[in-house]
Amino acid sequence: MSASSRTLREEVERLDREDPLAPFRERFLLPEGIVYLDGNSLGALPREAAARVERAVREEWGKGLIRSWRDAGWIDLPLRIGEKIGRLVGAEPGSVVVADSTSVNLFKVLAAALSHRPERKTILTERGNFPTDLYIAEGLASFVGKGHSVRTEPAEKIVPSIGRDTAVVLLTQVDYRTGARHDLARVTGEAHERGALVVWDLAHSAGAFPVDLAGAGADFAVGCGYKYLCGGPGAPAFVYVAPRHQRNVQPLSGWFGHAAPFAFEAGYRPAPGVGRYVCGTSPILSLTALEAGVDLFLEAGMDRVREKSVRLADLFVELVEERCGGRGLALLTPREPARRGSQVSFAHPSAEGVMKALAARGVIGDFRPPDILRFGFAPLYGRFVDAWDAAEALGAVLAAP
Amino acid sequence: MSASSRTLREEVERLDREDPLAPFRERFLLPEGIVYLDGNSLGALPREAAARVERAVREEWGKGLIRSWRDAGWIDLPLRIGEKIGRLVGAEPGSVVVADSTSVNLFKVLAAALSHRPERKTILTERGNFPTDLYIAEGLASFVGKGHSVRTEPAEKIVPSIGRDTAVVLLTQVDYRTGARHDLARVTGEAHERGALVVWDLAHSAGAFPVDLAGAGADFAVGCGYKYLCGGPGAPAFVYVAPRHQRNVQPLSGWFGHAAPFAFEAGYRPAPGVGRYVCGTSPILSLTALEAGVDLFLEAGMDRVREKSVRLADLFVELVEERCGGRGLALLTPREPARRGSQVSFAHPSAEGVMKALAARGVIGDFRPPDILRFGFAPLYGRFVDAWDAAEALGAVLAAP
Repeated sequence: MSASSRTLREEVERLDREDPLAPFRERFLLPEGIVYLDGNSLGALPREAAARVERAVREEWGKGLIRSWRDAGWIDLPLRIGEKIGRLVGAEPGSVVVADSTSVNLFKVLAAALSHRPERKTILTERGNFPTDLYIAEGLASFVGKGHSVRTEPAEKIVPSIGRDTAVVLLTQVDYRTGARHDLARVTGEAHERGALVVWDLAHSAGAFPVDLAGAGADFAVGCGYKYLCGGPGAPAFVYVAPRHQRNVQPLSGWFGHAAPFAFEAGYRPAPGVGRYVCGTSPILSLTALEAGVDLFLEAGMDRVREKSVRLADLFVELVEERCGGRGLALLTPREPARRGSQVSFAHPSAEGVMKALAARGVIGDFRPPDILRFGFAPLYGRFVDAWDAAEALGAVLAAP
Repeated sequence: MSASSRTLREEVERLDREDPLAPFRERFLLPEGIVYLDGNSLGALPREAAARVERAVREEWGKGLIRSWRDAGWIDLPLRIGEKIGRLVGAEPGSVVVADSTSVNLFKVLAAALSHRPERKTILTERGNFPTDLYIAEGLASFVGKGHSVRTEPAEKIVPSIGRDTAVVLLTQVDYRTGARHDLARVTGEAHERGALVVWDLAHSAGAFPVDLAGAGADFAVGCGYKYLCGGPGAPAFVYVAPRHQRNVQPLSGWFGHAAPFAFEAGYRPAPGVGRYVCGTSPILSLTALEAGVDLFLEAGMDRVREKSVRLADLFVELVEERCGGRGLALLTPREPARRGSQVSFAHPSAEGVMKALAARGVIGDFRPPDILRFGFAPLYGRFVDAWDAAEALGAVLAAP
């Protein structure tokens, strides 16, 4: 392939100039000289998050002290931010709350799902599910210890494997390695027809594309605050519980899930609605950062975010194929937009070394065992020239002797 | 009582001048014009916490991005801060980790304790225990659903009630209302003689006085980062597991408790030691603040902290009794230092209104139902004149018509 057949950087710069989301990049604090394609592991820092955290520390904690639980609205953060995330994932009002980590929330919703299907003993999940989903399911099944077990199947066998003993299907909507996306509405419908419930892990969905939990008749979902949502390292996670399932109690019945935490009653009386999915006291500084990230997505609108995400990923695949044909890369991510999230993954036999070499050139993606190069596209701060620069760097790394 | 019999503020100012811990006050950012006696609800802001959080946000998150998991040591925070807290509570090396909230950690250790005593079905706890301890025990017992139950008894009946069916005794060492302290070593020994394990909630102990978990042969403990330890609002909590109990698995088996989280293995393989008590990804910004608070206690030394705490509380009781005799106050906190934590509580029939009137005068303590005025003493930033000013304000409020 001759150099002249390649897409020029100038052509791509035009895409950024015409991009209606381009101004959002200025709302982030980004390091110089880095092409950051790992927002699916840790989203970049919104300027507003830095400002709000500093205010929460110096004003709310430092000056307001204990009074800030009320005066600065700390007490409202889990439901307030949950409500905002709910709008990003198509949840009914009052059905999302921010609390704990994705792992802890998985435990809550899986336990709740089992309590809805006491006669069924199987948690059905995908063999390649994100490990913590598998670990939590395993830990829960073993802890319950009433003949419960976890069954894993490859993605294509999930629906046919839903049987009379399947209490709950646990799936991550977007595969963290390949970026392939399950059809949330279809799988939910199939599971319901067979009498099973579904728990969706939206770790790589929330902030990546519009999700319609209510429209799909979803049961439960969890998701991550620190990836696409730009909530900061280890940001608290969210949990969705369909209104029709909210009357059940989940086992982590802590005081912040009580109807009146500050009445200090001796018996547990769950908060109405999804509020009972909060357990202990929430980490306020981390919650504060998360809200700033979520607000940016509400402002930009998930449809616009998704449209750019698809274009960024398509461009990247096209540019990589221009530059790296015959270099041992195999595209793992489905080309059809409806079947993928907001990442592009390639297999390569030297993936780990290739990713290190890219990092040395200032291109940050990540390696996932055994042989995966993963590149995430975050349309609020990612540019079309980032896709160009990354493809160019990948071409150079793979061409190096 | 004539005014001349009262201790003068000048006399108390001398105590501050001679106080070896007085310089620590400058290490905190405190609001003007406030006497803060609520560090047992939310500890004040260490200057270093503000600086470190700002660095964690702008440098580690903003510039380091995903690389900070390794380069800024985020991955080490739960065990590193746990080890430091372990030194404050007399834990064996490698037996404390920071994770989740106190409530979530209670669930883990109670579940682990039950797994050590499968033939016993009772969680024995104190009727007046902090509500979340009761709620979590209740939620767990009901979730396990194999005949388990929670039995509550008043403090003085706990030891005599430990029986053949008692799997675990769950106690908060210091009563959040009265400030009365259990003898941790004695109760632990009595429980062990009867074949039961003990879970200690150190929410009002860590950072309040020296604790000797290893010396007492303790089994499990949890504690709070945001009270005396000054870790910030909703700071992550800690969990202690005696080395002899660390081989058991706890049910919240998330990926950060795995031996190799980033190997993405399909099966759960618990981390060696107490590391398996971490579940999901930790809220890094909140952890960063916590470490700054903990470091101040290590620098000051718990013996010095405790010595001043006793003197502050004694002085406050003395001054209140000088000023408020016959005003309807009843001291709830034991006078003997070994039998109390770092707070002073009085009952008063109009406690809620009295506390509001104190707040209007700039004195912040808190009200606990039904009739308790609670004043916490935090020797790293609390002064002897604070005790004087608070007693004076309380006298004025109670004397008002």
